[in-house]
Amino acid sequence: MSLVVIGSVAYDAIETPHGKRERTLGGACTYIALSASYFTQTSIVGVVGEDFASDDRAVLENKGVDLEGLEQVPGKTFFWSGVYSADMNDRATLRTDLNVFADFAPKLPASYTRSPYLFLGNIQPDLQRGVQEQMQGVRFVGGDTMDYWIETTREQLLSAISQWDFLLINDSEARMLSGEYNLRRAAQKILDMGPSTLVIKRGEYGAMLVRRDTLFMVPGYLLEDVFDPTGAGDCFAGGFVGYLAERGFDLRNGNFDLHELHRAVIYGSVMGSFCCEQFGVERFLTLTRKDIDQRFDEFRRFTAF
Amino acid sequence: MSLVVIGSVAYDAIETPHGKRERTLGGACTYIALSASYFTQTSIVGVVGEDFASDDRAVLENKGVDLEGLEQVPGKTFFWSGVYSADMNDRATLRTDLNVFADFAPKLPASYTRSPYLFLGNIQPDLQRGVQEQMQGVRFVGGDTMDYWIETTREQLLSAISQWDFLLINDSEARMLSGEYNLRRAAQKILDMGPSTLVIKRGEYGAMLVRRDTLFMVPGYLLEDVFDPTGAGDCFAGGFVGYLAERGFDLRNGNFDLHELHRAVIYGSVMGSFCCEQFGVERFLTLTRKDIDQRFDEFRRFTAF
Repeated sequence: MSLVVIGSVAYDAIETPHGKRERTLGGACTYIALSASYFTQTSIVGVVGEDFASDDRAVLENKGVDLEGLEQVPGKTFFWSGVYSADMNDRATLRTDLNVFADFAPKLPASYTRSPYLFLGNIQPDLQRGVQEQMQGVRFVGGDTMDYWIETTREQLLSAISQWDFLLINDSEARMLSGEYNLRRAAQKILDMGPSTLVIKRGEYGAMLVRRDTLFMVPGYLLEDVFDPTGAGDCFAGGFVGYLAERGFDLRNGNFDLHELHRAVIYGSVMGSFCCEQFGVERFLTLTRKDIDQRFDEFRRFTAF
Repeated sequence: MSLVVIGSVAYDAIETPHGKRERTLGGACTYIALSASYFTQTSIVGVVGEDFASDDRAVLENKGVDLEGLEQVPGKTFFWSGVYSADMNDRATLRTDLNVFADFAPKLPASYTRSPYLFLGNIQPDLQRGVQEQMQGVRFVGGDTMDYWIETTREQLLSAISQWDFLLINDSEARMLSGEYNLRRAAQKILDMGPSTLVIKRGEYGAMLVRRDTLFMVPGYLLEDVFDPTGAGDCFAGGFVGYLAERGFDLRNGNFDLHELHRAVIYGSVMGSFCCEQFGVERFLTLTRKDIDQRFDEFRRFTAF
């Protein structure tokens, strides 16, 4: 079942205690799509500048990602630069050059509009809503957001997410959006905003999924070396929605299996953990579906009692 | 199967965002014993002063805790006072008066020495070792420690824990003891120090158990209200070792079931979560074994996939 992903495609400069990269393929849409591509046919909507390299296009193409919706326009590709703290729990942004992303007006190719799965990466909420309105007969839609939109475009954000099946954000965003520090209370308030399914990412501490009819929690995978956490949350999103698309999951079917949502959280966690093992998107150059399923099984073993 | 617990019995003054108590029964030994008493016959070794109230003695007696090893001596009971931050992730110690605890020289009553289970709460490591040496034919022994002993009595601590079956500490202590920030590496180094089983408590983020032959992780229970986290780690310890004593768990039996250790971590988590629901030891005045087993089942549901 095909999936449409929208969001940023970027170049990143990253420094972690393990090393640095001056210019590497990045952006939320890139990570989400690469991750989801292991599970389902994935199409992206994004924008890049004239400097976008054919080698980087090939990274996505080699995973079978449909790039018809990736516009290339005059100017430079979105550029982000950041440096991580020694324990990698904090990062400082050194530079954000929106470049061509500043005027991003997502346009869906006609071939995308009948896709049953849609993931709206972190962009201005009115744009997210506009994309959803272009879709015809979408079955399962959700997305991400960030502190900036919660603070500056709260009403537009609430309007957008009220139409979503799921919201996937990190714990600090959940606290900011709900105004509640306690995550159990925060989750209940967010469910009142529309999405029937809320996934809260907690970085190295794992993730949780909350609905009126279920609560699921999983600890984070314990890596021996975290090389670079950039994109891990986006790879989580790609694994989560990619797995559900692969399974043909349908919330509107009264008989859906809640455990499919739980397993999607595990696949999200698996993909996030792989992402951290190398710089940028490098891990995906060698990662196989077999590796993914083996780590899924490992999650089963280390949580069984 | 009976359990001997050694450690501090204290009075605490506690302030959290939910309120305060000027003087309430506390101390690691108290929390561990109250928690373990739901699972197994528990005997304590500790010291209190002349000010120790009969009502507080009764709190322990009412749970069937054997107080033969609780010495009462001239002077005042150990007193600790602390205040928690708004998010309760930090606390500041306002006052520590060791009082009679300063000269604590644990003496085991003869009736304790054949107990098969021993938990050595956080005290000076030579004292921990001395207690273990007084035991005859102990089957399963382990304990806790703290940053102060890791820093000031490292050699004595290494000598003590080299004789333990399990070490149960929090994540920051594991990092300090091993000199490794990454918990997976930290755990491997600690296993090299002697204990075959390491349990790392991660507060609201749950806990993990590491052995050469298994890794188990569990997320923290999501409480709607954390009233007072004081003693939660000690209640975890009491649930962990209490459950194993109840089951007659024996590491030296080659056929032991690893999942019993995993379930012990769940019971530890359950007891820690209940502890936070009211001030000090108050939750244990009403808590029943049925409540405990229901929350154990809840852990099963919210971690199933």
